Amino acid sequence: MNLAADPKADAFEALAAQPLTATIKGIPPRAAPIALGAVRKQGWNLLRGDLPFPLAVLSGAALEHNSRWMRAFIQANKLSIAPHGKTTMAPQLFRRQIEDGAWAITVATLQQLMVCRRFGFDRLLIANELIGPGELDAIFGELAKAPQLEIYALVDSLAGIERIAAAGRRTGNAARLQLLLEMGVAGGRTGCRSLGGALEVARAARREGLTLRGVEGFEGVLKETAAVDAFLDSITAAAEAIAGEGLFSADGQVILSAGGSAFYDRVAARFARSRLANEVQIVTRSGCYLTHDSVSYEQHYRAMRARELAEPGPHPGSLPTGDLRPALLIWTQLQSRPEPGRAILTMGRRDVGQDAGLPVPLLWYRRGLHEAPVAIGAGHSVAALYDQHCCLDCPSTSALAVGDLVAFGISHPCTTFDKWQVLYVADERYDIVDAVRTFF
Amino acid sequence: MNLAADPKADAFEALAAQPLTATIKGIPPRAAPIALGAVRKQGWNLLRGDLPFPLAVLSGAALEHNSRWMRAFIQANKLSIAPHGKTTMAPQLFRRQIEDGAWAITVATLQQLMVCRRFGFDRLLIANELIGPGELDAIFGELAKAPQLEIYALVDSLAGIERIAAAGRRTGNAARLQLLLEMGVAGGRTGCRSLGGALEVARAARREGLTLRGVEGFEGVLKETAAVDAFLDSITAAAEAIAGEGLFSADGQVILSAGGSAFYDRVAARFARSRLANEVQIVTRSGCYLTHDSVSYEQHYRAMRARELAEPGPHPGSLPTGDLRPALLIWTQLQSRPEPGRAILTMGRRDVGQDAGLPVPLLWYRRGLHEAPVAIGAGHSVAALYDQHCCLDCPSTSALAVGDLVAFGISHPCTTFDKWQVLYVADERYDIVDAVRTFF
Repeated sequence: MNLAADPKADAFEALAAQPLTATIKGIPPRAAPIALGAVRKQGWNLLRGDLPFPLAVLSGAALEHNSRWMRAFIQANKLSIAPHGKTTMAPQLFRRQIEDGAWAITVATLQQLMVCRRFGFDRLLIANELIGPGELDAIFGELAKAPQLEIYALVDSLAGIERIAAAGRRTGNAARLQLLLEMGVAGGRTGCRSLGGALEVARAARREGLTLRGVEGFEGVLKETAAVDAFLDSITAAAEAIAGEGLFSADGQVILSAGGSAFYDRVAARFARSRLANEVQIVTRSGCYLTHDSVSYEQHYRAMRARELAEPGPHPGSLPTGDLRPALLIWTQLQSRPEPGRAILTMGRRDVGQDAGLPVPLLWYRRGLHEAPVAIGAGHSVAALYDQHCCLDCPSTSALAVGDLVAFGISHPCTTFDKWQVLYVADERYDIVDAVRTFF
Repeated sequence: MNLAADPKADAFEALAAQPLTATIKGIPPRAAPIALGAVRKQGWNLLRGDLPFPLAVLSGAALEHNSRWMRAFIQANKLSIAPHGKTTMAPQLFRRQIEDGAWAITVATLQQLMVCRRFGFDRLLIANELIGPGELDAIFGELAKAPQLEIYALVDSLAGIERIAAAGRRTGNAARLQLLLEMGVAGGRTGCRSLGGALEVARAARREGLTLRGVEGFEGVLKETAAVDAFLDSITAAAEAIAGEGLFSADGQVILSAGGSAFYDRVAARFARSRLANEVQIVTRSGCYLTHDSVSYEQHYRAMRARELAEPGPHPGSLPTGDLRPALLIWTQLQSRPEPGRAILTMGRRDVGQDAGLPVPLLWYRRGLHEAPVAIGAGHSVAALYDQHCCLDCPSTSALAVGDLVAFGISHPCTTFDKWQVLYVADERYDIVDAVRTFF
């Protein structure tokens, strides 16, 4: 039974009933307050000007395609996926991911875990080292309240083991928290830097009566495939050494977990080589596949496809047919064309991430002129993003004019989602068919 | 009577009664749900570990100091200030700014305006070109509902005039919206690029029966003082030319408005030279002075002080005695020290802005070791920010250990505030004395 597939219906009903006020970005004042669940019944259309700009708009069709694409990938490669919830922080999207076969939801913080608990997700992977006594007490407290709840968390140090053990003693259920030993790379983020260090932590876990279930790493700090492969192999090696000393908890499989959104092909390929005697569960954690993007993760995706072509025939890590599609665009309105080569649009750092590259203009629409949005054409690019404005360089011959709509592709979903409390879902005709609430 | 100084008490009471749940970052699960207004009564202390990390913490003393500093500046220079609300989007802080003499609140979007309306702020400056019919209808609708409401908005094109006039005709109160003609600079953001262009727009406003009240610009797109001065002079020149043709609305002063948080000294100095026959109201719009910061705006502030020293004696644009203080720090906990030269902390792009520079580690605290936070010492600097992690380079001899608290100064308040729904206010002993809610 997929415990996590049984989220709390009443929490989702309460969410649907939640009134959205005009103080939330994207909610039209004349319709506010409006229940989240009532948005789909309004008959709003993005292109008709029913909504204020800028807007974050998800393509329902692209979401569905990407979600099924990942289901095909994990099934073909016999993986589990615990998609990183931090990307969208949208329980409505978590539910879709669970329905499409996700094994758990990954989170990075206590607050993110509490969002998942509110909506009844019962298998959670905290891909982080939580060491605050208050945080740990809260996590053990959640476990104490819910017998069906499974929480996995990372540990990379003796200090971490001590803090987890102390919190477990306070609540008397130390063994309920399932630990993954974290491996890291030199110059990188969290994680043990050596096999010896990893074994010390694993032995301490055993001494303290804690439950060690596997080994984990985040390869996304690396850029080169060879370095990623070597790091993934170090995770397998650590698991083999820990298993060799009998330090994993006696019951159940050994978990090997890695995989952001750039190298899950390699995770499948390298972990498949494990020589562990135990049954192995490989858990990937991509968060960005669901909406994909138009720049950064599109490049990562192209690199995965190139790696696949370099290794002909079916093999561990093979990707499904069809491509991931960018499901999230920011729609803006042109507010000024102060010079022939420049247009200013209603979108800024408050609306779109720029940490992994600037957004890219993709579509242009003018009511009366166009039946549907058209490609914006060459020569248009973002020159600067201010807090609330986008400066677009354009050819002096560009027909862009005040009032036109321009849609931008994004780079890095995580840092665009967190700028919106409500994102709309649109169909192919740009009718608004749903709204998604985030919890950042 | 300062209309804007009479915000809706009942809206603030409702805000204080609003329950904060554990799904909001920084709210401790064991205390949730807790009313915003009850936070101050909890006896929480930041250093005692009563709250989960990371946390955004405002210094109550620094806020008060900065707010009074700006009051002294505007009084000494006979300015009005309409602080940009986009910085904090915190009505509780807007109220403080109004109490300290702010003339209006500035906003950038319809959503921001609706936040101000909900809390009863009755004089609002939209420092933006709003051209969507839905947005304009909402603004004229707000004016129709509230006879005491004053809204000022920008216009920089004939297309903008047409759209505003059309919306005004739909609601029958076109003249209620008070327009400021926006000037801009070549290669910059919105705003007319020439005096001729500005006069065309001003004449169109008169033809359409709209109310033109002044001229505006945003000098923050420029870096050099000489360029800023020249741009400010172009604003004055446009106002003189428009006044020369009798295109300002007959009743009342002419408004000259400019001033982000980097050059308000120059705004005071250059606008004081206006030769307008009309009475002139100079409106500055700094948003960042209230919390100031530790990097970007600290540098801008030092540049202002250097300009002042270069021009001895009292003069327009003179700054008050005392310095602005950084009022906002992000407090984090050290979760891993995986290498001698590296520490990993619970703070990422989700918690702190990096568009104007990385955060800087300032304070270190370990319970039991320190009575109070101490300076962190040389050699500690941010190497990388991930979504939820901070990699800190540190000397291999650094005493930093798992569980320690580290406080970071920020660069650019606007892009840190927007990452928090709740910020705490602390006193000198780090007791939590209040909580501030944002509306992004």
